[in-house]
Amino acid sequence: MKIVDYRVTPIAFGDPPLRAAFGLHAPYALRTIVEVVSDDGLTGVSETHGGSAVVADLLAVRDLVVGRDPFQLAALEHTLYGSVPQTGNVATPWEGKLHSFPRTFGAIEVACLDLIGKALGRPVCDLLGGRVRDRVPFSAYLFYKHAGAGGEWGFECDPAAHGWAAARQAEALSAEALVEQAQAMVTAFGFKSLKLKGGVLPPEEEVRTVRLLRAAFGPDVPLRIDPNAAWSLETSVRWANELEGLLEYYEDPVAGKENMAALAQRISIPLATNMCCVSFADLPATIRLGSVQIILGDHHFWGGLRASVELARICRTWGLGLSMHSNSHLGISLSAMTHLAAAIPNLTYACDTHYPWQSEEIIVGGKLEFVDGALPVPTGPGLGVELDRTALQHLHEQHLRSGLDYRDDEREMQKIEPGWRYRVPQW
Amino acid sequence: MKIVDYRVTPIAFGDPPLRAAFGLHAPYALRTIVEVVSDDGLTGVSETHGGSAVVADLLAVRDLVVGRDPFQLAALEHTLYGSVPQTGNVATPWEGKLHSFPRTFGAIEVACLDLIGKALGRPVCDLLGGRVRDRVPFSAYLFYKHAGAGGEWGFECDPAAHGWAAARQAEALSAEALVEQAQAMVTAFGFKSLKLKGGVLPPEEEVRTVRLLRAAFGPDVPLRIDPNAAWSLETSVRWANELEGLLEYYEDPVAGKENMAALAQRISIPLATNMCCVSFADLPATIRLGSVQIILGDHHFWGGLRASVELARICRTWGLGLSMHSNSHLGISLSAMTHLAAAIPNLTYACDTHYPWQSEEIIVGGKLEFVDGALPVPTGPGLGVELDRTALQHLHEQHLRSGLDYRDDEREMQKIEPGWRYRVPQW
Repeated sequence: MKIVDYRVTPIAFGDPPLRAAFGLHAPYALRTIVEVVSDDGLTGVSETHGGSAVVADLLAVRDLVVGRDPFQLAALEHTLYGSVPQTGNVATPWEGKLHSFPRTFGAIEVACLDLIGKALGRPVCDLLGGRVRDRVPFSAYLFYKHAGAGGEWGFECDPAAHGWAAARQAEALSAEALVEQAQAMVTAFGFKSLKLKGGVLPPEEEVRTVRLLRAAFGPDVPLRIDPNAAWSLETSVRWANELEGLLEYYEDPVAGKENMAALAQRISIPLATNMCCVSFADLPATIRLGSVQIILGDHHFWGGLRASVELARICRTWGLGLSMHSNSHLGISLSAMTHLAAAIPNLTYACDTHYPWQSEEIIVGGKLEFVDGALPVPTGPGLGVELDRTALQHLHEQHLRSGLDYRDDEREMQKIEPGWRYRVPQW
Repeated sequence: MKIVDYRVTPIAFGDPPLRAAFGLHAPYALRTIVEVVSDDGLTGVSETHGGSAVVADLLAVRDLVVGRDPFQLAALEHTLYGSVPQTGNVATPWEGKLHSFPRTFGAIEVACLDLIGKALGRPVCDLLGGRVRDRVPFSAYLFYKHAGAGGEWGFECDPAAHGWAAARQAEALSAEALVEQAQAMVTAFGFKSLKLKGGVLPPEEEVRTVRLLRAAFGPDVPLRIDPNAAWSLETSVRWANELEGLLEYYEDPVAGKENMAALAQRISIPLATNMCCVSFADLPATIRLGSVQIILGDHHFWGGLRASVELARICRTWGLGLSMHSNSHLGISLSAMTHLAAAIPNLTYACDTHYPWQSEEIIVGGKLEFVDGALPVPTGPGLGVELDRTALQHLHEQHLRSGLDYRDDEREMQKIEPGWRYRVPQW
């Protein structure tokens, strides 16, 4: 089997005005679709981060991908290494120290695994050692947000919306509003654990939100808060004392491996990260320092699905927990995340996903459906999803119209609060 | 695809009277052949350690294997964990702290991967990420030995033998004799690096052997010595000073992670191990202490081929070298080792193999052939080798006749030196 064509399509889809420590989500989230086409007419797809730098990296290696046997992934990785121009290796705040190379290779690897799975008639999880679970639980990802639905609606709201569609566009800038958002999301999707994106309001209001969530959902629903490194070490310690017994894990309250390690010495809540340990190169120091107890993996930046299985082995070996990080994404990413989570025995926490926040889709059949807060592992060949070419064209044109060429939450935030700056720590 | 039959066959094959720190090889080496048969009539095979305890572990999990889809390896591992009776978890000196579970699962995993490869028409390396090399270099594994060819010949020699067959049966209990052995082996197989099994003669004679090998083969042929922990820390330091500049790596001169780490602080030759770090559980302490620079992996005891790929990622991540350990084995193991080595980018040292010491085979077509010291990676489906059922039956009967039920080099040694004991350290 040989790859005879390789396509990279930037897309944009509506994204509500969600807040995080980095600022505000723009009305459109950017993403990139990668396709590899085999000489027997099959197409493998994947989805990765968006923006012109990501696309430039992917396009730069086109000649190294076309002509290859998709099974030869280690050799492809070896060939790409050093050939990715690292255009996308920019340290925007939201992406921290993500590296061009594993992102570029990972996107191609997932498309190749989809292609292999389709050719063999086996789901992708079977190429990763098979499934250890038939359904993958996800958590409710709760955001402080401004009113608005994103996309063409921008900061507007559809007065006819109801249920989750109404909650999705509602303002939520207080503890009480967050609880309403959580209730609507849990009612709609059945999630069994809650993650609060923090680092937005003063810590006391965010901790009050956690307390209200606990009161509303009871002691059996695990809670997490992720201030995205917006808190100082002292602030993180102080609020940890308030959060003791309430949190399943405490995600990146403070910036950097050293601060996280210092925090770990002073509190008993397990620490999780997708910021201070985002690559294999980060692992030796993270483990040596004892910075975290849980790694939030993400195949989009760890170098693909096989690399993520290898990360899982490292977590097993060093006794670290493993969960899964997400960015705004569509169903191709969700399917890949689900196959990966299905294949990893020690991925024992519900995974993060932004998926409920998006109303658009790019796969045939529309949005994938959660059942009781979990996604059934697709059983079809490859990722088990098919690209909807009409939707791809539409979302590509939307990308062109959006005028966005990279994610910049600070710039978006400044549109509503002139002079706003992303600061670490903010509190 | 479903596994409908599972067969475990103990075998024995002739093995010359090779010496190591543990004593003497018996006239027969024990090994076990595992077969998994699918409902579409295909058979996957693997080869692992021998002896009744190993067989007992493999037989005990029969009901957990039959009825399974061979793709579901992570689930099988999860199911087997805790179900292997650990009969083979005996700490005989030669096997150190090898654990029943990864050995048992690993043997079944390799057979399943062979089965999957045969069903899909792809070589096993393509199930591990594809090949990064088309040929896998092996090293000449040199042993001090008594005269004799092993097997029915025992301590006898065939006077008509010539070439490697003559050298294979010749006594080699001095530096000069070892050089002759090396020359015969290199002439016959073309190996480009040399490994001396040490811990047998007094260290000064073994170091003299290394010097003579260097003089005979020149500076471009990498040399290694493996005293199998028979040397004290002081002895290891003292002889390291003599070996400086002569060795590619210094393998397990002293016993245990702590001693190896102390040695690493005092010498500059890279240290390798297949004794103080033989499982994932050993890695955190090995890395924390800085016990070694090179891990000698072995899929037979690290839990199979996928686990070995994961070990390779750990070695890449922590900047450790990776090479491959061997025990006496036949062509099924050699093929699996070759597929694994083909798939691992950072397996940059020539692998160990005892294969030239064996004259019997169990695969159709007889012994695999080295070309210029390397084995071409098989291109056929699965492992690329087929079990020869007549040979299997013969070697199984030989096992029954051998009267051996586990490897005991000390007992064999006592037959020629009454009262001989395996001691750590010996020197």
